[in-house]
Amino acid sequence: MQLGMVGLGRMGANLVRRAMRAGHECVVYDLNPDARKELEGEGAVAAANLDEMMSKLETPRAVWVMVPSGDITGNTIKDLGEHMDADDVIIDGGNSYYRDDIARAQALREKNIHFIDCGTSGGVWGLERGYSLMIGGDTTAVERCEPIFRAIAPGIEAAERTAGRTGEPTQAEHGYLHCGPNGAGHFVKMVHNGIEYAVMASYGEGLNILKNANAGTVDRDSDAETAPMENPEFYQYDIDIPAVTEVWRRGSVIASWLLDLTAAALVESPTLSDYSGRVSDSGEGRWTAQAAIDEGVPAPVLSTALYSRFQSRDLDLYANQVLSAMRKQFGGHAEKPSG
Amino acid sequence: MQLGMVGLGRMGANLVRRAMRAGHECVVYDLNPDARKELEGEGAVAAANLDEMMSKLETPRAVWVMVPSGDITGNTIKDLGEHMDADDVIIDGGNSYYRDDIARAQALREKNIHFIDCGTSGGVWGLERGYSLMIGGDTTAVERCEPIFRAIAPGIEAAERTAGRTGEPTQAEHGYLHCGPNGAGHFVKMVHNGIEYAVMASYGEGLNILKNANAGTVDRDSDAETAPMENPEFYQYDIDIPAVTEVWRRGSVIASWLLDLTAAALVESPTLSDYSGRVSDSGEGRWTAQAAIDEGVPAPVLSTALYSRFQSRDLDLYANQVLSAMRKQFGGHAEKPSG
Amino acid sequence: MQLGMVGLGRMGANLVRRAMRAGHECVVYDLNPDARKELEGEGAVAAANLDEMMSKLETPRAVWVMVPSGDITGNTIKDLGEHMDADDVIIDGGNSYYRDDIARAQALREKNIHFIDCGTSGGVWGLERGYSLMIGGDTTAVERCEPIFRAIAPGIEAAERTAGRTGEPTQAEHGYLHCGPNGAGHFVKMVHNGIEYAVMASYGEGLNILKNANAGTVDRDSDAETAPMENPEFYQYDIDIPAVTEVWRRGSVIASWLLDLTAAALVESPTLSDYSGRVSDSGEGRWTAQAAIDEGVPAPVLSTALYSRFQSRDLDLYANQVLSAMRKQFGGHAEKPSG
Amino acid sequence: MQLGMVGLGRMGANLVRRAMRAGHECVVYDLNPDARKELEGEGAVAAANLDEMMSKLETPRAVWVMVPSGDITGNTIKDLGEHMDADDVIIDGGNSYYRDDIARAQALREKNIHFIDCGTSGGVWGLERGYSLMIGGDTTAVERCEPIFRAIAPGIEAAERTAGRTGEPTQAEHGYLHCGPNGAGHFVKMVHNGIEYAVMASYGEGLNILKNANAGTVDRDSDAETAPMENPEFYQYDIDIPAVTEVWRRGSVIASWLLDLTAAALVESPTLSDYSGRVSDSGEGRWTAQAAIDEGVPAPVLSTALYSRFQSRDLDLYANQVLSAMRKQFGGHAEKPSG
Repeated sequence: MQLGMVGLGRMGANLVRRAMRAGHECVVYDLNPDARKELEGEGAVAAANLDEMMSKLETPRAVWVMVPSGDITGNTIKDLGEHMDADDVIIDGGNSYYRDDIARAQALREKNIHFIDCGTSGGVWGLERGYSLMIGGDTTAVERCEPIFRAIAPGIEAAERTAGRTGEPTQAEHGYLHCGPNGAGHFVKMVHNGIEYAVMASYGEGLNILKNANAGTVDRDSDAETAPMENPEFYQYDIDIPAVTEVWRRGSVIASWLLDLTAAALVESPTLSDYSGRVSDSGEGRWTAQAAIDEGVPAPVLSTALYSRFQSRDLDLYANQVLSAMRKQFGGHAEKPSG
Repeated sequence: MQLGMVGLGRMGANLVRRAMRAGHECVVYDLNPDARKELEGEGAVAAANLDEMMSKLETPRAVWVMVPSGDITGNTIKDLGEHMDADDVIIDGGNSYYRDDIARAQALREKNIHFIDCGTSGGVWGLERGYSLMIGGDTTAVERCEPIFRAIAPGIEAAERTAGRTGEPTQAEHGYLHCGPNGAGHFVKMVHNGIEYAVMASYGEGLNILKNANAGTVDRDSDAETAPMENPEFYQYDIDIPAVTEVWRRGSVIASWLLDLTAAALVESPTLSDYSGRVSDSGEGRWTAQAAIDEGVPAPVLSTALYSRFQSRDLDLYANQVLSAMRKQFGGHAEKPSG
Repeated sequence: MQLGMVGLGRMGANLVRRAMRAGHECVVYDLNPDARKELEGEGAVAAANLDEMMSKLETPRAVWVMVPSGDITGNTIKDLGEHMDADDVIIDGGNSYYRDDIARAQALREKNIHFIDCGTSGGVWGLERGYSLMIGGDTTAVERCEPIFRAIAPGIEAAERTAGRTGEPTQAEHGYLHCGPNGAGHFVKMVHNGIEYAVMASYGEGLNILKNANAGTVDRDSDAETAPMENPEFYQYDIDIPAVTEVWRRGSVIASWLLDLTAAALVESPTLSDYSGRVSDSGEGRWTAQAAIDEGVPAPVLSTALYSRFQSRDLDLYANQVLSAMRKQFGGHAEKPSG
Repeated sequence: MQLGMVGLGRMGANLVRRAMRAGHECVVYDLNPDARKELEGEGAVAAANLDEMMSKLETPRAVWVMVPSGDITGNTIKDLGEHMDADDVIIDGGNSYYRDDIARAQALREKNIHFIDCGTSGGVWGLERGYSLMIGGDTTAVERCEPIFRAIAPGIEAAERTAGRTGEPTQAEHGYLHCGPNGAGHFVKMVHNGIEYAVMASYGEGLNILKNANAGTVDRDSDAETAPMENPEFYQYDIDIPAVTEVWRRGSVIASWLLDLTAAALVESPTLSDYSGRVSDSGEGRWTAQAAIDEGVPAPVLSTALYSRFQSRDLDLYANQVLSAMRKQFGGHAEKPSG
């Protein structure tokens, strides 16, 4: 089938490539003419603007929006809506907030334009591995676009079949899933990223404990303010962390793709001294915590992982100053110099 | 080479099977004669007691202990030590506390017996997948036993080679690693399990948020004591959780072996109503938190995951009673009935 | 000055009493005629409806709304707004969400009616101790109502003067504070309650540790699934918790009003067996966590305290079922019966 | 009665002063002759060494040790034990680990010397307010020293009597408590400090949220890596934090002595810019977490507070580097410069 793609950054371009490999015809647009030209060279049909894109797609059309999240996505969808006709489909493949999906779908519904929210996981590896797709929208639209989703998704062979599953593989086993009405796709993607933050923190904390397994060999200041190490004899190990991540990749309970990536990162930068340790967060982790709170569901591990990222950027400074100030008041404790 | 195995439970028996498949000769012992007989039928040499095991192994001997953790391991190692000779090797493959390893190694060293601690991950799947081995001990002993470790480990092909690694594969790429002197193996295994607890909690919390994505469709009591849901329109989704775990297995950032198992569990028990949700913990998670505290390394995610297990067993009861009692004092709030 | 009061529950009635004690004239209304009659008997002017209340208050009027939070507050304020005139003042003393204040103030501003949000802390003790007041709104209105705030607040003598403060006592030292424009009052009250949750949890967790200081005297199951206690000799204490809370009230760093209440609760119910330990939460704790996330400020302690309340109500059930299901998959671990 | 005091730092000297005010005779020793001289000038009997102290105390003697915690305490007690006679009493008033108390008591029991562990809370304010005393040891010794404890403790009038308590005030109402056998005193003091850490963190996090209530007025970078603020209109408040702590001191649920100190600190340093926010921890918080883990009691709030102190000292660096490295691997995300 035909697919329009608006936004030819790394993600958008690779989605086009996977769709074309499966035989779909792609009409592509990006503000940057070089990006259009590059994909044209690979077989796509370039459009110089949305009008041209519309004219090159047969109705009912399907156009995927893959632009940086936030305001730009909203504006692009609105703009597209003004160019499209009843029964056309817009797919938002970015990391939009699912609540925005609900509003956008409702606005487009007035023109009888379908809206699909499609959480897309796969990062820079998606071209090769395929993208895990979490889809929200009405059934008519989702079913119509299914050939595209199937082309983009990783496919059945991307994982061994789960024990106990028999018969015709399900959608999910192909690597894409219609999760529910509008917003459901990005809701599931949001929780996916919330989990991701916590899984990452699990490895991070664990490896930090391994890195400090030699703490007993290091002098630690000890005075009324700081506890000396009680049992330095138990912390005398110099652990080869790159090797540990490698051994865990095989046969262990915590083998995972994130662990594979950690092992790869440690080949590139064995001590990780290339990194300052200021960890960004990009919305989904926050929204996941908010969903947990709204639902009344405990998420202490997920939330703590999120807050640890804030702490990595020193956003706890004032809280810590309050503590130091209290300690001085009740105990006369002066802060230690940071040197 | 020859290997003695003391303890023929599921783990011990499967270790023997993997060793024999690779051509090693195994002399096996278990208190239970049926267990011995079963492995004898598969080609092992059965010993009726430790004396007989000693006589059937050429020196220097290597005997692996695989008995339920705790006191039994300690007693078995002590007992074995009394039967063995200088230069023999004892391998503890259980989930012992690494501090016990240090003491046991020291006691055995007086008789010039080598001690190896070998953290062994793989569970009921190890026979098929191989076991990830984290090894502590002196180099002489570890090198001598390397053929056994290599037979038991998953092997290179168990995971795709990490980008950037070249040349002869390392030990770790075979799935076993000499981590350092005595205790280092179980130390690394301990942290492995600490990470495991937190990764498990990450999925558990995330799936709980998905399960309650329909919270807006459910009546929630609302009075001065309980906040009503502010935005029920955003929580109207009935998510198919078994399908979600399946789609995440392919192409997503959080694909992992634990996710594979979750998907399998959800085929067996789609609503998980077979489980009461009382989650055991078996030592390593606690020790990991203790190591973090001793080292002065923050581990809020790992520790919170551990505490959540305690909470699943209602060990927070008194703390909660204190809170209810305070609330009654300052606000006259009566507890809601638990119905 | 004159004050109208809508809502004569415990809080509203006691606010009226404190205002009257200071010589202010109160015109009171409640749906329940008995509540009106009771305060009439104490010297208030009762009004049978809002019209009558309006006629009995000289303009510009000040009317305090003290009704159960949520929808009722919103409707009451809207209703009042329709009865009042330009330059009148409405004060919301309940636990409203500060975002609602912003919307309500804006709606009333169109009629030139002033709106004040007034977070009110003091609970059932406020009549005697006075109420801590956190106030948001425009300066004209707040200054006009200051005699009322001063009458209701605890007053300077409620706490020893802070070292370093000199000269004329500030508003805050009287026990009320104009925190900023609309919403600021409830924002500060919201954070106050967020802190309250965490302080309560701090005592709850600590006392639970004390209660279990005899854990070494109790048999604990020990098997492959549950770690035995390693050092029972260190947990042999039977601590008299009511006495401990009493001793901490005098001279210790953690003396506080919440501790005073805990000590009182433990006199009433020494083992707290009157409580089931299902702890409600009423909005502010959730909003505080949300504010932290929006601001990008770490609040792991506050959020964990909130989640512990959810856990006390078993809202972690599905997460724990997921964990048990995983454990069965990888280790063949059956759940322990809950008996 | 007579009391010996070894260690005349701020704490030891003030304990002597409170004992003398109540009419007790104090024989004092410190390595520093100036410290001895100062107290001699206030009426104490100075001893130039332990021998002299022994000779100046009538048997059975009671000697309080108040030296910096850790090794020095252990050595001093051992040294004293060698100078003392059967039936004498040694009191350790420092922040010793309760497990050391058990060992020290046992060693001294062989010479029939009594040992009392006495957790002492009060900091620099104790001279004026009295010290909250948590006492462990055998009944004979504790009863004999009761006049000293009563003199040092804050006394009944230090807090209003708890509702429901009648009759003769208990020990605890005087501000000291015999908590149980050896170790029980320091155990209760340990948990006290664990609670203290978490209460401090509760205020610290809450005030940090207030400080950032103006986050919507500040430009925040927004790109694919960082979520823009979604609702800046809700974060437009400039909160006067010193005033807020003052208003909370009167009538609010979270009034406490730590809040009093915070208010005082904010008078001295209104923006807290005098503090760098590196928060020390001195043992008890760590031991409390360890006790929770040993007992199997959840303490996520207390532990998270402890870990936040570690994070304030950047001990999470490697964990964060791991996260940044993972993010670069899967998403090509470069770290933001720390500027």
